Amino acid sequence: MKDAAVPSHTLQFRVRYGETDQMGSYFNAHVLTWMEMGRTELSRHLGLPYAEWERRGIYLPVVEAHLKFSGRAPYDTLLEMTTTVEPTGYVRLRFNNRIVWAETKAPVAHGYTIHAVLNREGKPVRLPDWVRQLICGGSDSRPCAE
Amino acid sequence: MKDAAVPSHTLQFRVRYGETDQMGSYFNAHVLTWMEMGRTELSRHLGLPYAEWERRGIYLPVVEAHLKFSGRAPYDTLLEMTTTVEPTGYVRLRFNNRIVWAETKAPVAHGYTIHAVLNREGKPVRLPDWVRQLICGGSDSRPCAE
Amino acid sequence: MKDAAVPSHTLQFRVRYGETDQMGSYFNAHVLTWMEMGRTELSRHLGLPYAEWERRGIYLPVVEAHLKFSGRAPYDTLLEMTTTVEPTGYVRLRFNNRIVWAETKAPVAHGYTIHAVLNREGKPVRLPDWVRQLICGGSDSRPCAE
Amino acid sequence: MKDAAVPSHTLQFRVRYGETDQMGSYFNAHVLTWMEMGRTELSRHLGLPYAEWERRGIYLPVVEAHLKFSGRAPYDTLLEMTTTVEPTGYVRLRFNNRIVWAETKAPVAHGYTIHAVLNREGKPVRLPDWVRQLICGGSDSRPCAE
Repeated sequence: MKDAAVPSHTLQFRVRYGETDQMGSYFNAHVLTWMEMGRTELSRHLGLPYAEWERRGIYLPVVEAHLKFSGRAPYDTLLEMTTTVEPTGYVRLRFNNRIVWAETKAPVAHGYTIHAVLNREGKPVRLPDWVRQLICGGSDSRPCAE
Repeated sequence: MKDAAVPSHTLQFRVRYGETDQMGSYFNAHVLTWMEMGRTELSRHLGLPYAEWERRGIYLPVVEAHLKFSGRAPYDTLLEMTTTVEPTGYVRLRFNNRIVWAETKAPVAHGYTIHAVLNREGKPVRLPDWVRQLICGGSDSRPCAE
Repeated sequence: MKDAAVPSHTLQFRVRYGETDQMGSYFNAHVLTWMEMGRTELSRHLGLPYAEWERRGIYLPVVEAHLKFSGRAPYDTLLEMTTTVEPTGYVRLRFNNRIVWAETKAPVAHGYTIHAVLNREGKPVRLPDWVRQLICGGSDSRPCAE
Repeated sequence: MKDAAVPSHTLQFRVRYGETDQMGSYFNAHVLTWMEMGRTELSRHLGLPYAEWERRGIYLPVVEAHLKFSGRAPYDTLLEMTTTVEPTGYVRLRFNNRIVWAETKAPVAHGYTIHAVLNREGKPVRLPDWVRQLICGGSDSRPCAE
């Protein structure tokens, strides 16, 4: 199902107390924050942390997000999140995230975010070559082909 | 365009300092928090605040969310959010939100959330009659017809 | 007790669902966020919103905060917060906040924040005259006297 | 300076994108959230995660907090936080936290929180013996002596 060429990274983290709500599980908005953490660690794993992308003048604001919430996770639950990335066209990136309980793999949430590629002035630009390189590994492999 | 029978509520609020990020606009996750505020005020406007729903044993966890981010809004921007609600089938509710700059109506974000209907034990239940009543006003009007 | 000359502003707001935690009341960190809201609205009430302070090149990062948490407030509680401000010396501002239930005045939390006064380069500067003017009303009244 | 008998735990974490604000550093309220993370990991390090404390019917709401903010930390900064705990009397616990840049040890923030000890009904109770045991290691060592 998953193309081996798609860059992927998995990390573990725990639900913070303040991330729960009075229903006793994580509050939905924090999933978007966690997804950002996943993108951050995936970019580091690819060899160029996202903070460095911004220093190079490339910004990736989220323009669209879709989330499905499939299971509860109270305070201190050890979660496991897998993040993948793929270009969608020449001016967008798409990150996919899947969050499960680390021990049981019980599903918690999954979704994707779509990102514009902006320069320092906030103008849309094409994906720089060094980004495509990071994601596609230089090859013209499937995840990067249009 | 908008069916007059769909319950709708509009409120204004400002972007908090802590809701911005280092790109100088609101951080995306807060939109999900704002959408919850919209649902809260719509339920109060319909005559039965959501806190009362929970006291009656009805819980509405978000099971799906879709968001589009269409414009910036830095600290202290006065925003205007319109929220509507409609049943989707007998066991789901859908809320729609649209957020714009209060003064210029410049678009900021819009999206929807889909909610399960659970009882105190966390079991899915059908929409209680008093909820359909609140939303459909007793009539079998379009937003509530299947 | 309270000097009539001290600028003061009171606002009301509700506890958001995502601001609660699994203990069923607001999570403590949000009080710092609420206190910022109080400073924002006090500055607007004084005639010059804080966003304008930053446009003039004056930044007020918090350098110290003290908080006491005295009572619960679950989701949707209508709270009332009073904020006051006073200079402390020539290079610091102090804001005080008190949060109670709007209807019963039952105490929820109170505290203060102390702020450095920085210019655009992040260097500490003396309180500009226009800030002292805003706070002390031009007079050499007590809250501003050293 | 630091009594060897005081339970202490150090952890590392990164500043999330959404934890920054438009000044380009972490927003102050998140320090209270981080301090909670420190307490969580210290309790796990002591052998009984705080989630288990609540399952045993002991709750530790924060009743007081003091924070000093001493340095900036933008997105993705690797931080190091050290947390210690000590009883203060028979009905309060005090946690201390110090946050620095992991690499340079440049100071970021430090402070403490004081916690009530409540039972399931929200009534104040004395520190249970098993808590004193965890913290004082069974000995009547200094951090636990009155």
